Amino acid sequence: MTPTQRLDALLTRIEPVSTAAADEAQRLLDMKTKPRGSLGRLEDLARQVCAIQDRTDPDVAVKAVIVMAADHGVAAEGVSAYPQEVTRQMLLNFAGEGAAINVLARQVGADVHVVDMGVASPVEVQGVRDERVGPGTQNMRVGPAMSRAQAIDGLLRGARVAADLCDAGAAVLGLGEMGIANTTASSALAAVFTGLDPEELTGRGTGIDDATRTHKIQVIRDALAINEIDRSDPISALAAVGGFEIAGLAGAVLEGAARRTVMMVDGFISSAAALVAVRLQPAVAEYLVMSHKSVEAGHRVVLREIGARPLLDLDMRLGEGTGAALAMGMVDAAVAVLRDMASFQSAGVTDTGR
Amino acid sequence: MTPTQRLDALLTRIEPVSTAAADEAQRLLDMKTKPRGSLGRLEDLARQVCAIQDRTDPDVAVKAVIVMAADHGVAAEGVSAYPQEVTRQMLLNFAGEGAAINVLARQVGADVHVVDMGVASPVEVQGVRDERVGPGTQNMRVGPAMSRAQAIDGLLRGARVAADLCDAGAAVLGLGEMGIANTTASSALAAVFTGLDPEELTGRGTGIDDATRTHKIQVIRDALAINEIDRSDPISALAAVGGFEIAGLAGAVLEGAARRTVMMVDGFISSAAALVAVRLQPAVAEYLVMSHKSVEAGHRVVLREIGARPLLDLDMRLGEGTGAALAMGMVDAAVAVLRDMASFQSAGVTDTGR
Repeated sequence: MTPTQRLDALLTRIEPVSTAAADEAQRLLDMKTKPRGSLGRLEDLARQVCAIQDRTDPDVAVKAVIVMAADHGVAAEGVSAYPQEVTRQMLLNFAGEGAAINVLARQVGADVHVVDMGVASPVEVQGVRDERVGPGTQNMRVGPAMSRAQAIDGLLRGARVAADLCDAGAAVLGLGEMGIANTTASSALAAVFTGLDPEELTGRGTGIDDATRTHKIQVIRDALAINEIDRSDPISALAAVGGFEIAGLAGAVLEGAARRTVMMVDGFISSAAALVAVRLQPAVAEYLVMSHKSVEAGHRVVLREIGARPLLDLDMRLGEGTGAALAMGMVDAAVAVLRDMASFQSAGVTDTGR
Repeated sequence: MTPTQRLDALLTRIEPVSTAAADEAQRLLDMKTKPRGSLGRLEDLARQVCAIQDRTDPDVAVKAVIVMAADHGVAAEGVSAYPQEVTRQMLLNFAGEGAAINVLARQVGADVHVVDMGVASPVEVQGVRDERVGPGTQNMRVGPAMSRAQAIDGLLRGARVAADLCDAGAAVLGLGEMGIANTTASSALAAVFTGLDPEELTGRGTGIDDATRTHKIQVIRDALAINEIDRSDPISALAAVGGFEIAGLAGAVLEGAARRTVMMVDGFISSAAALVAVRLQPAVAEYLVMSHKSVEAGHRVVLREIGARPLLDLDMRLGEGTGAALAMGMVDAAVAVLRDMASFQSAGVTDTGR
């Protein structure tokens, strides 16, 4: 099969989640010793996990966070507060287990899988998986960030990472990323998918000032003007203004959904990648748990576009999958409620049906 | 010492938290490999825990949730969707480890300590601590819920529970409750402390309909009219319209603050109890972590009164300490970030000071 055929085959493997399992889960939750619905979004989450796994005794024991890293040609435009070499430095930090995502994943018993999707120069250290599409993208302000073939390659490589983790037993996957200037790519993607002006979708990333933000908006406008983008074709958008780690995460989302895995989306970049996947296959949306609401300006818009409400709102804006790791504790809690709580009958508690 | 003198002595033992430790914690957080402030409220939480414990290597390993239960005379007015016997039934459910709080506390490695502060008839089973102030309160619609002596007794009993847990090593205490009709007591307390009309402070509790809610508001108005309450005296309010479990939790908050313990406040009732403690000793506020925002109508107002923002917003309204248990995972995460993350220097990552 050609890469395009392989991608098409992946898209057709994705099925709707099971509404029957969700309904049965709610029936079981309504028998638990608590007023109906009083655990709010934990009940929603329990229902969603059941719908994803098509069973009412879901297994979420094995969890992993995928952290995909890549460099971005548009970093040359001075859109970030950090120099490009930080992508590579942070990849080493992930491998050395010193970054925030390492610490937060450990708290919830999730492994961290670090993937080099295309950092400017290869990072050949233990614990970093090589799925390099290229040595960073091209500068989207002067042309497409990548070729269509590279976009599809990135998607398929990301799918393979997810497939390997699912083969190893993972039932919950967090979607993290690192890549200096990748909020620029994500804002540009959001602009393509929503038709909104980049002004509404562009934030401060790692902490840029007003002047740099104004410049960043102009860079995105220029990129959208110079590249021919077919708005109805997500791969065209991904190639023009995306990133290798964004392609990889979108591919991981597709494969995860095809394998009925709970996909924990992190912040703005992770959500932009998830939106690429949703545009390729709308059934993907039901497999996504939007972990948190980032302070990054465009995230609110992308969340609305995906049609899901984030679980946490903690003013975070770090990425790496940190919000996804934090929210994994909620998934464990939701499943434990369904599995372990007594029923009105078993506990001898009066049920008024409220 | 008389009970009043013992309470006064407790209030004077409460010191302000350490702003020096908080500042030093922020300095350490700013050296970690992440943009400044990018972990948002996790950083706030790490700072607060350091301020509470007056150290930058805080220990939050031992955690417990206190679940205090009591009955309320005002239940006779038909203000709840559940009959009064459910308080006792749920106490047995807590002791049998089948309730939501048992399940959620287990997830974060917290013990559950169940306390009978005054259920209508004694619950003499293994695993329920007897701190009964009386066989439920009186009906606040016809007179004070309890005497001033009982209010102080409840506060001191609650303090003793917290003291014992702190003696056993607990560094983080969750504040849960159970008591049919205790949202009525909490709305009434909130009305006294804020001067707002009960209409604004009264919700659906465990799930009452519109007509019952209208009746509940009238019951609270009647209670506020018939009882002589000195609004400047929190104990007067507690005696008139409070509850034994509310008194107990307020006392636990005071003792916990005196012992520099992280106090995890749960939902509406737990927050009303915390507000009693804050009114008795304003320095208490800095020891409180408001775990979540309940859907119960008055909670928003009580949170504003305490001046703290809740961590989670998951549409929960169960009580029992369930929100506090969930939020304990965030405290662990915050402390782990401070303790375990690499610094820019140790990881060799470029620091731009942003």
